[in-house]
Amino acid sequence: MSKKNLAILLRARMRSNDPTKLSLSQFPKEIPSNPQENHSRDHIVTNPTEGSGNSSAFGTTRRVYDVVCETMHSAISASKTGVSDITLNDFQEGYLSLSLEDREKLLVLLAKEYDVNREQVRKLVKQYLGLETPDSVDEELSSPKKEALASVFYRIEWNLRHSLKPTYEILFERLNTHPGGLRFLSILRADLLSMLTKENTPSLRTLDSYLKEKLGMWLSPATLELHQITWDDPASLLEKIVAYEAVHPISNLLDLKRRLGIGRRCFGYFHPAIPGEPLIFIEVALMETIAQTIQEVLWDNPPIPENQATCALFYSISSTQPGLAGINLGKFLIKRVIKLVKKDMPHVSTFVTLSPIPGFMQWLLSKLSSQSKFAADERSTQSTSPSSTFSENVLLPEEEQALMSLSDDSSSGDHGMEVLLNLLSVTNCDWATSPRILPVLEPILMRLCARYLLQEKKRGKALDSVANFHLQNGAMVERINWMADRSEKGVHQSAGIMVNYVYRLENIEDYSQSYFASGKIHASPGLHPRL
Amino acid sequence: MSKKNLAILLRARMRSNDPTKLSLSQFPKEIPSNPQENHSRDHIVTNPTEGSGNSSAFGTTRRVYDVVCETMHSAISASKTGVSDITLNDFQEGYLSLSLEDREKLLVLLAKEYDVNREQVRKLVKQYLGLETPDSVDEELSSPKKEALASVFYRIEWNLRHSLKPTYEILFERLNTHPGGLRFLSILRADLLSMLTKENTPSLRTLDSYLKEKLGMWLSPATLELHQITWDDPASLLEKIVAYEAVHPISNLLDLKRRLGIGRRCFGYFHPAIPGEPLIFIEVALMETIAQTIQEVLWDNPPIPENQATCALFYSISSTQPGLAGINLGKFLIKRVIKLVKKDMPHVSTFVTLSPIPGFMQWLLSKLSSQSKFAADERSTQSTSPSSTFSENVLLPEEEQALMSLSDDSSSGDHGMEVLLNLLSVTNCDWATSPRILPVLEPILMRLCARYLLQEKKRGKALDSVANFHLQNGAMVERINWMADRSEKGVHQSAGIMVNYVYRLENIEDYSQSYFASGKIHASPGLHPRL
Repeated sequence: MSKKNLAILLRARMRSNDPTKLSLSQFPKEIPSNPQENHSRDHIVTNPTEGSGNSSAFGTTRRVYDVVCETMHSAISASKTGVSDITLNDFQEGYLSLSLEDREKLLVLLAKEYDVNREQVRKLVKQYLGLETPDSVDEELSSPKKEALASVFYRIEWNLRHSLKPTYEILFERLNTHPGGLRFLSILRADLLSMLTKENTPSLRTLDSYLKEKLGMWLSPATLELHQITWDDPASLLEKIVAYEAVHPISNLLDLKRRLGIGRRCFGYFHPAIPGEPLIFIEVALMETIAQTIQEVLWDNPPIPENQATCALFYSISSTQPGLAGINLGKFLIKRVIKLVKKDMPHVSTFVTLSPIPGFMQWLLSKLSSQSKFAADERSTQSTSPSSTFSENVLLPEEEQALMSLSDDSSSGDHGMEVLLNLLSVTNCDWATSPRILPVLEPILMRLCARYLLQEKKRGKALDSVANFHLQNGAMVERINWMADRSEKGVHQSAGIMVNYVYRLENIEDYSQSYFASGKIHASPGLHPRL
Repeated sequence: MSKKNLAILLRARMRSNDPTKLSLSQFPKEIPSNPQENHSRDHIVTNPTEGSGNSSAFGTTRRVYDVVCETMHSAISASKTGVSDITLNDFQEGYLSLSLEDREKLLVLLAKEYDVNREQVRKLVKQYLGLETPDSVDEELSSPKKEALASVFYRIEWNLRHSLKPTYEILFERLNTHPGGLRFLSILRADLLSMLTKENTPSLRTLDSYLKEKLGMWLSPATLELHQITWDDPASLLEKIVAYEAVHPISNLLDLKRRLGIGRRCFGYFHPAIPGEPLIFIEVALMETIAQTIQEVLWDNPPIPENQATCALFYSISSTQPGLAGINLGKFLIKRVIKLVKKDMPHVSTFVTLSPIPGFMQWLLSKLSSQSKFAADERSTQSTSPSSTFSENVLLPEEEQALMSLSDDSSSGDHGMEVLLNLLSVTNCDWATSPRILPVLEPILMRLCARYLLQEKKRGKALDSVANFHLQNGAMVERINWMADRSEKGVHQSAGIMVNYVYRLENIEDYSQSYFASGKIHASPGLHPRL
């Protein structure tokens, strides 16, 4: 592939995961009304300009939707092993050719009409409750009569368990064993997730939970393969790296080449059923010291000779499939990458991330906003005791003072929290470039960020999703870095602060265990004085 | 690897799937009584000659068994994501170090103590029956109250479904996501299967069905990767080909090399979680015409230049994991191999098997034996009408006559079926080498074999397992071949007869469909006159 072609491709930034673009042309505009006749694949494709009149186009759309419904029905209702590949292919292509609106209609249909057969469940439940459990039927005695009773019990229990599975499970399982089906299911789930943001009904939510559970099972980490991605890989793969890089967008050809070149590594987790496309990938920089800012990794410093590297810095982890949201694909990823790098370069002894803190500003602004209200209430009632048990001053006395000294017309406020809230809420982020404000905010934001990372929790786990990911994997919080990501996104997300999580091989298992068991977050001693 | 080493390895025919040999030495003889202390991996391994006294050895065995039970318990009862890799490793190694007797004890324990929590099920069933189904709670109205009711219903139904899963599912799922765990589960199931032949209790049977279901899901054909196996592959892989070849055993180094050399292909289905070992492999010979005997494929004819080949002959398919019995791993295998061969060699246009007929003689002997009894009964009662509706003379009049003409001291009998039964039952298979008997038996056995393949069914599918496999995949029965496998095994199994199944690309889908739908077996016209 020529550089020119790749450049065009990169400029276009075509998101190849846009499923509507995949197969529309493959799916016929005119379909025989009897789907059986459809199997010959001799589809009659009409001139695309024909039937562009409104009513006719509507008729075609209706017909396509109905055919897709019928194909789905065939795919579900065919006998156990008798569903044909053609039916499954037709359903996949048909679904992808539908408008978003029709897809949603189909998903509602799937969730409701192919739900659990509850009549069957009730029948079996009654049978089940009438049986003696195998504990009362003692197998030890091995009298044939008793064994027969236990046998019946296990059979009915098995049937009951299976009857509680929604009928749509059949479709999911058949697609999973079908070439391309897993990729398709991830697209279907992406549609479902976007739909749930608008129409969160219990039946759709259950459909999603069910599909998520299944996908999680099928995409077990043990089936994922780790490969290094290099400049020699096909453009169709590199294109996806460009499209999916979610942490630090790849801006141009040079940028991509640098991330795959000397002193850099990129590894992807691949699943055999979704070839040519990593499900998740991680970018690594080989360095002499632990980087404090993303600028030096991405642009400032030229890469050092690899034999001088002592530190492998993980600076970006991106997952590529929106339809796999909530499924932990990263398990073992870091551990396996460390093993691979270590084998290749034994002189590398430090494994550390330079990570974003995606939830920091959101948490801080919401905290400041609610606490400012409490403070205003207290002030208006002239009470000296806190108005609520939830109220606290998140600022230290000296921080309060420093912030009030900043108070002027542009960032007024009755108290420190209000001043800080007003400063941070300005959409253009003036504070981040102001030589007057920045030095005042630095110690305050750094302290609050340490608090956020080490103390703020949800169900006993770190509130920050990236922190939770690395802590689960057995990392510790090593250092937070001021103005480490000066990009607009970085300033908005985390006031430009980034964090280094360190993986110490000798502690990974222990730290992971204690984090799971008690939510304990290990941090370097340097971080604690900030709290 | 030197030829000498490989030769030694091949001679030894070490079956590397013997799990007891894998890890015995890795597992400590002395284990601290507190399994927590075990995690440091600084196991104290005592001198193996110590403690060989009977009582002491018994004590050690007991202790090891108890530790494995405790490890299993930890692996199951740890919180959702908090089970450590070390615990799972310890359980795997511990299990593999147990004697077969202890393994069986452990499996009984697993089946009984980690079964469904039935108290929980009963509680949820009662809650469930008390709820209105979402159909009665109409979601269309979208009143928050009704939606809330539906939401509760779905949650309870979800909980009920999960409560019906046996607790041992947790162990299976955790092992599946653990490196090496899938391989381990297949060993565990092999133990279970061999145990079921002796102790077929409902709880063990259910444990097996459950594990089989799970393994079938995890080993979906979509996750299997097809690779060509060549002489350049590692000896550790080739060793497995030698060990697992089940159809035509590989006798020596030269034999293996020939099967991987010019005019031959070997393809394996690999799973990413079980690296270095195919789950199933298929051997292919490139030929000018469809081979009639296995001798010409394996020994007689030198391979032809590959560019002269027009026919790809599949002469052996072997699965390697006894623990995966009953799971259809071969789905898509043939189709994918055909695609691969066709791409590589467009001049190959015929895809055909030379297959054993593993069930023919067993079926024939049992048929002859039962029908001989019926015939004897009829004779003794002097009745002219058949004594049973099940009785039939499987022989044609001219076959009856021909067989009676053979009757002498060595193969006496009152009627043809008895003569045939007596001839075929002689363990040394004299008939197969007798110039007097062989020509008489040939037309009879060939006709009965065609009948067996095309007409004998079980639940609407071909009785013969190999026939069923190929017919499911969309093949047709092309030809049966006399004395096509003169090996002892071949004569015992199928009177030396082998069969060619042909895959015609244009018919694969249709034939597979009609076989599934109605059990229709397609056969070449030449076969029908034999019936």
